[in-house]
Parts: sequence; C-alpha cells; structure tokens
Amino acid sequence: MTRGPVQGKAIFAGILSFLFASMALRGQCAPNLNLMPMPGKVQVGSGTLKIDTNFNVSFVGYREARLDRAGQRFLVQLHRQTAIVFAPAQPDPPKATLIVTTDHESKPVQELGEDESYTLEVSGSGAKLHAANPLGVLRGLQTLLQLVAISSDGFVVPGVTIQDQPRFPWRGLMIDSARHFIPLDVIKRNIDGMEAVKMNVFHWHLSENQGFRVESHKFPKLHEMGSDGLYYKQDEIRDIIAYARDRGIRVVPEFDMPGHSTAWFVGHSELASGPGPYQIERKWGVFDPAMDPTSDKTYKFLNELIGEMAKLFPDQFFHIGGDEVNGKEWDANPKIQEYMKVHGIQNNEGLQAYFSQRVQDLVVKHGKTPVGWDEILIPGVPKSIVIQSWRGAESLAAAAKQGYRGILSNGYYLDLGWTAARHYAVDPLSGAAANLTLDEQKLVLGGESCMWSEFVNSENVDSRIWPRNAAIAERLWSPADVRDLASMYARLAVVSEWLEWFGLTHRSYQRPMLQRIAGSSSAEELAALTALAQALEPVKDYTREENATVEPTSQTPMNRVVDAVHLESEPSRRFSVKVDEFLASSCRDVAKAAELRSQLTKWAANDARLQPLAQRSLLVKEAGPASAAFSQAAELALGALDRITQGLPLTDDLKKQQLAALEAYELQAHKAQLTLPARLAFQKVIEAAAANGSCAAPR
Amino acid sequence: MTRGPVQGKAIFAGILSFLFASMALRGQCAPNLNLMPMPGKVQVGSGTLKIDTNFNVSFVGYREARLDRAGQRFLVQLHRQTAIVFAPAQPDPPKATLIVTTDHESKPVQELGEDESYTLEVSGSGAKLHAANPLGVLRGLQTLLQLVAISSDGFVVPGVTIQDQPRFPWRGLMIDSARHFIPLDVIKRNIDGMEAVKMNVFHWHLSENQGFRVESHKFPKLHEMGSDGLYYKQDEIRDIIAYARDRGIRVVPEFDMPGHSTAWFVGHSELASGPGPYQIERKWGVFDPAMDPTSDKTYKFLNELIGEMAKLFPDQFFHIGGDEVNGKEWDANPKIQEYMKVHGIQNNEGLQAYFSQRVQDLVVKHGKTPVGWDEILIPGVPKSIVIQSWRGAESLAAAAKQGYRGILSNGYYLDLGWTAARHYAVDPLSGAAANLTLDEQKLVLGGESCMWSEFVNSENVDSRIWPRNAAIAERLWSPADVRDLASMYARLAVVSEWLEWFGLTHRSYQRPMLQRIAGSSSAEELAALTALAQALEPVKDYTREENATVEPTSQTPMNRVVDAVHLESEPSRRFSVKVDEFLASSCRDVAKAAELRSQLTKWAANDARLQPLAQRSLLVKEAGPASAAFSQAAELALGALDRITQGLPLTDDLKKQQLAALEAYELQAHKAQLTLPARLAFQKVIEAAAANGSCAAPR
Repeated sequence: MTRGPVQGKAIFAGILSFLFASMALRGQCAPNLNLMPMPGKVQVGSGTLKIDTNFNVSFVGYREARLDRAGQRFLVQLHRQTAIVFAPAQPDPPKATLIVTTDHESKPVQELGEDESYTLEVSGSGAKLHAANPLGVLRGLQTLLQLVAISSDGFVVPGVTIQDQPRFPWRGLMIDSARHFIPLDVIKRNIDGMEAVKMNVFHWHLSENQGFRVESHKFPKLHEMGSDGLYYKQDEIRDIIAYARDRGIRVVPEFDMPGHSTAWFVGHSELASGPGPYQIERKWGVFDPAMDPTSDKTYKFLNELIGEMAKLFPDQFFHIGGDEVNGKEWDANPKIQEYMKVHGIQNNEGLQAYFSQRVQDLVVKHGKTPVGWDEILIPGVPKSIVIQSWRGAESLAAAAKQGYRGILSNGYYLDLGWTAARHYAVDPLSGAAANLTLDEQKLVLGGESCMWSEFVNSENVDSRIWPRNAAIAERLWSPADVRDLASMYARLAVVSEWLEWFGLTHRSYQRPMLQRIAGSSSAEELAALTALAQALEPVKDYTREENATVEPTSQTPMNRVVDAVHLESEPSRRFSVKVDEFLASSCRDVAKAAELRSQLTKWAANDARLQPLAQRSLLVKEAGPASAAFSQAAELALGALDRITQGLPLTDDLKKQQLAALEAYELQAHKAQLTLPARLAFQKVIEAAAANGSCAAPR
Repeated sequence: MTRGPVQGKAIFAGILSFLFASMALRGQCAPNLNLMPMPGKVQVGSGTLKIDTNFNVSFVGYREARLDRAGQRFLVQLHRQTAIVFAPAQPDPPKATLIVTTDHESKPVQELGEDESYTLEVSGSGAKLHAANPLGVLRGLQTLLQLVAISSDGFVVPGVTIQDQPRFPWRGLMIDSARHFIPLDVIKRNIDGMEAVKMNVFHWHLSENQGFRVESHKFPKLHEMGSDGLYYKQDEIRDIIAYARDRGIRVVPEFDMPGHSTAWFVGHSELASGPGPYQIERKWGVFDPAMDPTSDKTYKFLNELIGEMAKLFPDQFFHIGGDEVNGKEWDANPKIQEYMKVHGIQNNEGLQAYFSQRVQDLVVKHGKTPVGWDEILIPGVPKSIVIQSWRGAESLAAAAKQGYRGILSNGYYLDLGWTAARHYAVDPLSGAAANLTLDEQKLVLGGESCMWSEFVNSENVDSRIWPRNAAIAERLWSPADVRDLASMYARLAVVSEWLEWFGLTHRSYQRPMLQRIAGSSSAEELAALTALAQALEPVKDYTREENATVEPTSQTPMNRVVDAVHLESEPSRRFSVKVDEFLASSCRDVAKAAELRSQLTKWAANDARLQPLAQRSLLVKEAGPASAAFSQAAELALGALDRITQGLPLTDDLKKQQLAALEAYELQAHKAQLTLPARLAFQKVIEAAAANGSCAAPR
C-alpha cells in the first residue's frame, strides 16, 4: 500500500504546540529548533544556556552504570558537535549545568511499551532533564544534543521546556545483514543513529538464501558453509546487544523460514525439501529452496537452533520470517505430497501454515513471542504473536480486528528509493486502521523501516538509510498531526548534518565513490560528475533489476554512478519547490525565474563538461546517456521558461513533442538505472509555457 | 636550518629514468604513472592488465603468515579502490594474476638497513613481484596499488617494469601522542599511510610535560596520575607494534628526559629537581621542571622503567629525547649546585651531559641503542648512538664527521605549516652534508617528519600530516635527483586522493569542521566559508602562539577556522602557478588572464557572501577580518590585472600604497592566526602592473 504525500493538511488541524513554539521563535528572531522527531510539546522560554568548558552533568535519583555511560557519551557527542574540551570531570558536581533526575530503573531486559517519556527544561542557568526511568533519560539527552547551536555568543542551547513521549511503542529499523554482510562497525553507527532519532528496535535480518550470518555452536556448518566466512560471532552479537541496550534499543533477531533459507542447506541439506546439494545463492529474488515441513528432523533441528538463539538474544520477541515461499520444491517432492494427502493438508498455503504453527510452538516453548511477516497470520494462532506487515496498513487493520498486534513496514522499505516525503506520509494508523476502535488501535504497535541489502554494502548503506529514516522515526514518535512537509525537510537537512557527528557516512560516502568513478581527473571534471550525481536518483521500487542489462548478483561491484547517487536528490527537490513557487506566483516572481534560469543553465551545460571524463572512464561512460538526457531535459525546460518570461506561448504541438521528449530522456536515463527526479518540475514548466503563453497557478 | 624550494633544477641534471618514462607515456597518450615515492627505475611496457573479479594472488618461494596477511590486505585495498568483489579465494591458484616471489625471511625484529628492494613487472597477462624478503614485497604491493587506474576499459594497470629500492634506510614519521593524546585508530590509519608511501619507522613520542601516555606496571602512578586517563595499555602498544611490523614499519618509542617531563612528576615528584608538587602542564612551551641528575633515586627509577619499556618495545633503538632543558630548577636547587661543585660539573650543559651519559648507559645495559635529539651528542659518547637533528643538516654533518649516525628532522616539522615544496627541498645530504665522504654520508641514515601536537587532535591530525608527508617520504626514498616540483605536485594530488582509501581523513575532515563553524546555514553561506577556508592557511612556524590574544592550552577547543583550513592551500598554489605562467608570457596569455580574472573576481566577492554568517556564528565572526582582508587583497590584484590587460600603467605611488595595503591585509588575517598564501602572487601582479604598464617576465 502506498500513499502520496499529504501536504500541509495538518496546518488546519488546530494550533499545535510545536507550531506555536516555532512561530514564537520566528517572532523574536531566535534560532529555529531543529528537532527531529518533533517532541510532543515544546514551549520556548527566555534566556540561552551557554556551553563552555565548565559544562558538566550530574545524575540524581535512581543510578546505574548505564546512566553514567550515557552521560559520558553525551559529553563525547557534545565535544564532537562543539569541539569544546570539557574540564576534567568531578563525579556528580553539586551545581552541574545539566541535572538528570531518574525515578527508577527500567526492566532488566528492555520490554515493549516501557515508559520513554521525559521532560527537559533549559534556562540561562542550566538544564534539567527528568524521566521515570533510564529510557526516558536517553531520549531526552538526544533532544538536548539537537538543541545545541552556534550563535554569535558561541555554542548555546535556547531556553525551552519540552514534554515528550512516543506515539508508538515499537519504532524499528530492520537491517538485512544476510544478502550483503554488514560489518559490526556499520551496525554500531546505525544503532547510534537510531538512538539519535529515538528509534527503539533494531530488527536484525540474519539469514537468507545468500547467507547465514550467526555463529551457531550447535550447528556450526550453518555459518561455516553458509556465509563465505562473513558471519557474526556470538560474542560480537552479545556486544551489539549490550551496545543497543545502552542506547535504549531492543534487538530482535530474524531467522527467515521456511523459504529464504538456501544458505542453511549448504551445510544442512537434510532440512530442505529438494534433493540438494545446495550452494550459497548469488542472485537476487525468490527461489525454490524451502525447508521440509513434513520431516521430524526439521523440527528437531529447529528446536535446538531456536533454543540456542533464544538464549543468545534476550529480547522477548523472536522473528521467524515466513514470507515468500513459492512452493516449487514442495510440489516436486513425492514424500511431501504424500504427507499432505495423509494429513489432509489441501495446498501449499496449508502446508506453510502447518509449518508456521509448529515453529511458533517451538518459539513459545523457548519462552519467546513469535513475530513474522503477514504470512504467519493463520486461523487459530495465539493472539500473542506479532505480525510485521509488508502488505500494508489494510492487512494490519484486519489483523487488529482479529485481536492481533502488528507493526507496519509497507511504505517504509528504504531500498525502494522513495522520497522522505513519501515515507513520511505513511502512517500505521491511516486508511482502514483509522477506523479501528481505540482498543484495536493499541494493537498497532508502530512500524519498522527496512533496509534490504541487495544493492548496499558497508560503503553506501548509511546513505540508503539516512537521512530518510529520520523522517520515518518522526512519523513513529511524534504526534500524528506533525505532518508539515516544508518543516520536515528544513529540519531533516539540519538533522542530516547532525547525524554525521555519530559517525554515519550518509553524506561523506559520496565524494570518494565519485572520485573512484572519475579516476584522477581535473577539479572541473569532478565537479561536473558531482553535479550530475547530485541531480539524479536511482530508479525506484524494484525496477533496478528490470532495467539491468546484466543480471546483478552479490558479486556485482557497487562502483557505478547509480550506487553513488543519493536516493533523494536535494538539488532536484529544491528546484521542484522553486518551480511550484514560481508557478504559484502566476509566473510573476522575477527573482524566482532568475534562480530557476541559473540552475537550468548549469544543468543544461553540464553534459559538455562531463564528456572528456566519459571518454576516459568506463564508469562515467555508462552514465553518459543519462547525463546527455538530463542536460537535454534541462535545455527544454530552459526554453519553456524563456517563453514564459518573454510571453511567447508554446504551441500545443510543441508541448506534446517536448513532453514526449522528456519521457524519452527519462527512459534513456533508465539504461544506467538512473532517473531524473526534476522531470516533473520540467514538465510543469513546459505545461505552463503552453497555457496560453502565460501560466496558471498549479493545483 | 631552513632552505627554500629548489625549483626545477633537477631537469638539467641529466635524462632521468623516471622523466624518460613519463615522457614516453605522454608520447603514447597512456595514463600518467602517479607514483609516490617515484621508484628508482621505471620502464613503460606495452599492454595493460585488466583488474576484474578473477584477480587473485599467489605467493611463491619463502612463505610466512605476514605475507598472507599482506596479500589479504592488498585485496581489501584493491577492493576499496575499485569496489570489485573478488571471487572467493582459492589458496595460491597456480595461474594467479599476481605472482609474488620472496627469496627468504627478514629479521624477526625488523632492523635498520634491511633490504627493501623489489622488482615489479606488469604486462597484459599478469603481474610479477619479486623481492629478497617480505619487506620488499610490502613495498612493491603499494607500488602496484598506486598503478591501478580507471580507464575506458574499466580498472587497469599499465604494462610497466619497475626496479626500486630506498635511498635512505631510516624513513620515519614521529607522532607526538603526549601533548594531545592520539587515539589508537588514528595511529593505525597513519601507519597505513606510512606503509602506502614506504616509510619504515614510526617514532612514537610518548611522554611530555602534558602527559605520560604508556601504562607502566612498575610505576603505575606515571600513567594514572600523569595522563588524565588518556594512555595506551601495554596490550594496545603490543598491538600497534604487531600492526606496524605487518606493514614493514619499526616502532621507536621516545621517553623525553630530563626536561619535557612534568607529567612524570605528578606521581613521582621525587624524580624532579624542584620541590613540587606538580600538576599536568596545560600550557605549551619549554618549562622549568627537570629530572634531578644528581640523585641516585632518579637512575634507580629510570633503570627499572627503561628495563620495562625495553621489553615492551622490541626495536633495537630507544629514544631518550634530551632536548630543551632550561636549567632553572637546577639553578634553584642548592643540593644540585653542591653536587656540581663537588663533582666539578661546570655548568648546566655539563650537568645535562652527565645525565645523558648515565641514561645512555642504562639504555645500553638493557640491550638497546640510544637515540636522542642533538643535545645528547656530547664528547666521548659511544659511536653507536644515533642523533636526531632538530637543529639541521649542518649539525648532522658535524656529527657524521665525528663518526656518529644521524637522522634529519629539521625541515621536516609538519606542525610548522610549510608547503610540500619547502619540505621537499630539504635533503639530509644537502649543505655541509653534501661534502661528506661517501663513508661519512652513510652515517646519515635518513630523516623523520615530526608531527608535534600542540594544535592537532584526532579530528584534524591527519590533515596536518598528509598529503605533505608523502613528499617527505619521496625525498627519503627516491633518487636525490627526483626534484621536479610540477611533477611532485601533480602526483601528490593523486596520491592524496588515493590515501583516502586507507582511511585517512586528511581531506574529509574539513567539511564537518566547517559545518560546525557555520552552524545550520544555507548552502550558499557554507560555500562562501569553504571558499575562504580553502584559500587561507594557518600562520607559519611558531607565530600562532605569538599572535594569540588568549594563550592557547591543551584545553583550548580546536574548533576555529584556523583549525579547519588546510596547511597548504591548493587553490592559492594553483593561482600562484598561473600568475607565474601569465607573467612568463609577458602578460600576453589572454586565456590565462581570463582564468586569473575569474578566480580574483570570486575571491573579491566572497567576503560579502560570508557576512550574514559572520553575524550569526562567533566562530565565523572571528575569521571575519581575515575574510575582509582576503577579499580586499584580491580586489587589489584584480585592479592591477585589469591595468595590465588594458595597458594602463600603475604609478609608483599607487604601487607602494597597494603593496603596503597588501601587507596590512596580511597582518589583519594574522589576528585569527590566518595567512593569505596568495599574497605573493597578488604582489607580483601589482608589481607587473607598475612595470611600465606592461609586464616583465618574473625571476
């Protein structure tokens, strides 16, 4: 289920506290509060707190080592943001700048639905953070870090009072470490990023056709033969779990069954429904191999493995996958067909339901609560399970009506290349879910963004998660009526910069990749490549695989322009906003027209600047047609813009011709798996030029 | 001793093999060989070796685990450079793309003067690397990595035959981890950088007034009380030593005595000549505290400590510092004065010599060879010691004449902010050393660049070392007649990019720092700040401390524009080169004039673009006067350029006035510890404009 952006509607929903706050700020020319997720309630106070070398923290009330570490990390982070060297710490100075009060402990293993609320008061004389338990403290510390800004007096925090709590209790990021292995340091910095935007569930997709990524002591052939040596040791997993717990984040492991499991069968073909032998899968897609649901061996094995993994992962929830079985191995196996006949199992859905039920029983037997994709919801399963919906909010609402808890992932697939605005518009309680009773709505626990890893590796994965994931985090944390797109994008830009201080490479990754693509080249040539890369995006949804001339595999180098471009082009987005503003002025805004003209002129000229490089580098050459298409498209828009400003109408024929050309340019870019995100803005300019030579306000 | 750049002289020194090679390449339009250090002998062959997923390595001849690890690291590095995913490795494939032949082992503890030579042959069908021992293999692998380039066929290595060996056996980088603590990961990536440019000694400056940075089991108060908790554990040191050994790099520890040792006295005031108590020093400079050379306690302590450290650090050489004792504590201590009288020690130099001799004896007793700064060379010390000269090549030559071995550091102080060209011109065998006999010249072991850390931390230290250190590495490795500056700078630019693949942050550090300085700002404002930062440099030599309005300490935040600018401005250097070319054309090169005009126009307009930001950020505001000065200086040069192209002579009065203004602008920039490196080029333009309205070729 996808839904378009809902622009600006919330403005009419009433005077919201955050809007009031931000308006008040604008009135007094105070700095904007670049908070994301936007807190539940923000009141701007007077005074500003200066951050200097004497800044210090004390903890009052309930104490634990995790809080001390959080205080240390806070200071490290504050140092990164300001470079201020803090005076050597005294333990709990009586008159600390920041006084943190915690009422009581949180659960020894973090649980779903624990209190994460906090209040934060900042004045000229200091800051006070109060929370019921350490989780709220962690959330509040991140808010405080976001408030730090440089001013004409140095680094300061504006006076402010914030009361904050999450809208949904399950706010997750799933990372697929199985299709491409994601190293530990990359996992850690993304957990840091999750903490920064107040997400609280790291869902770790650990097994796939392409790899089994966890060390198993019971069945070492799983990781030894199923991972090319790229797996996490159990100590490393424990380290990640402790790391996440320190940041108020639960770790939910996923072992996908009965499909998506080829890598298991490399060492354990006895689990499979086919004859084997099996190799680690190198291609992408849905494949035939599936576990044998009719064999006792399978359940004996899974009982032991789930037992081992249930001990390794302390979280209450245990994800068993359950998605996308094509059933071909089942159809082809006479033993399985016979079993189905004997046991009255009518079809593969029934067989999968049977398997799912037995695996869920094993999970429950080992003290855990099963989570799975939509497919595991079968008549009669206990109400305790949690459905993760890749199908959509309708599916989630249907589950809630039956009394099942669910989390939304449809609409939050980060690998599809959607804009932040599009993800932001997806709400777990929208559509059919909006009509649920309040009690049913409580069964909708929240959502999870998903980073499937066909086309990411440690070099570019951060850029595929961030900054867009911060917009999803806001959707899941902030009040439902926080929806203004202009505000979201303004804050997202600042938060994106801020996230770099956590070690995320979502901005810094690009230059080295473009340098690699360009080889040793002049600054001018590299600038042309950068301008191109920053104006384009990868093709959306699942079309990348469709458009590939050579089928991509896990061995395909990710060194192409498509691997280096951002998933959302900021220059193109800004250009599109300016086009809308220009057209809304009935094309009378001369300054805006000049800005548009300047951008279009540069874009139109860019291809010529890039050509020498395309001669020398195969990787630039591949993007050559997209570059030409982009410059030609900009040239068309430039011509149309000139007609508008000169009052020379575009004929209907020319309009049709140009729109067709735009379409052709877009298709030309697809050859390198690239798309021209500014094309809709170009189209608007052309259409406006045709509208009787003047232009009508759009929409 | 400093010497200016010797530009282009080597061109007349004969037809050098590298020049021949690069000319041959140019003739056939093949890619340039961006090698640094330039190998002893390069012959360009035919064909190119394509790098693809089937690339693999096999080792022939002598084998050891270090070689296997080197092969693995080579593949990791090759993956970073190309993003190619190499097919899962078979051990030693018979028809490998790269065949590495090693004759025999190297010494178990790497020694001074071991053979580091190698030969590398690349053809269309494969590459062969041959070396006597693993050290040569390590050097050759780096050369091969530097040869990889993107082409219209993808990633390739040009056909080439290289015979290579170092000119000097001691090619070091000293990092001062004491004034500012440098974390282990930063040390490691700099060791990677050293390997990349074939340096072989990591000199680790571990103790200072500001910190004692090594864990001592014998005297734990040294690190516990003398480091603010910022010290290396012995296991971490061993890890670094193993890491360096894997990369063919020796680790020489330095414990600076009897001065530069305040931090020792915080826990062990009994070693000091003053009454104490002592605190960790927070300021920079030369301070009074010094060890008591007259107390047996001192030598007993040092005997045990040196014994402990001699075991920890396996290298044959052990650095005892010995520099800069001001003698004030000795003068003020009656017991010491009495001792000197009794023992006939005539002055503080004599007292230091006495101390130095006794400490050298201790070092020798523990099986090590002492190294120290110039001061340790006192009449009668054994010929085995090594002098590290901060005083200069003259001092080194004098030592060699007496039969002492030496290494040059004067001229290689990276913290002084010199240009790469200026460091590059410094030769350990220049000046007085050039007149040494061949045998005496052999006593000049090489050199060491020094990264003193008053004004660096983990965020910007890489940028203070690299890329300039690569030019020093070339001076110490390549034949003496490799001196062409244009070639050096062209290759340095490429090598600087390449070094990023080793994780060095000397290029990527800047944007986050500027972002911090700018706060949340528009792209336009950030671009103005970036343009300013990239055109300026920090003041040179030791003037930064002189110009500071507030005395800097170890607690001073390094968040200012001066901390973020590069030590050598590439835009300013390129501009200066263009000015020289323009003037050399007798100002007739119209295209060049247009380029100069375009750059000057941008620079002249930059200050206005920056002003809004200077209002909002204290850190930008501080650089405001420098920004104004820079834009005004560019404006002057622009006016002068226009006079030249229009044939309107500048009067002598105006010239004097403008040169005086330039001088004033420079001084204005100094207030923020910044300098305008393009000012000499500006001056040349003004002088040319005054030369009868036309212009004379410069020099």
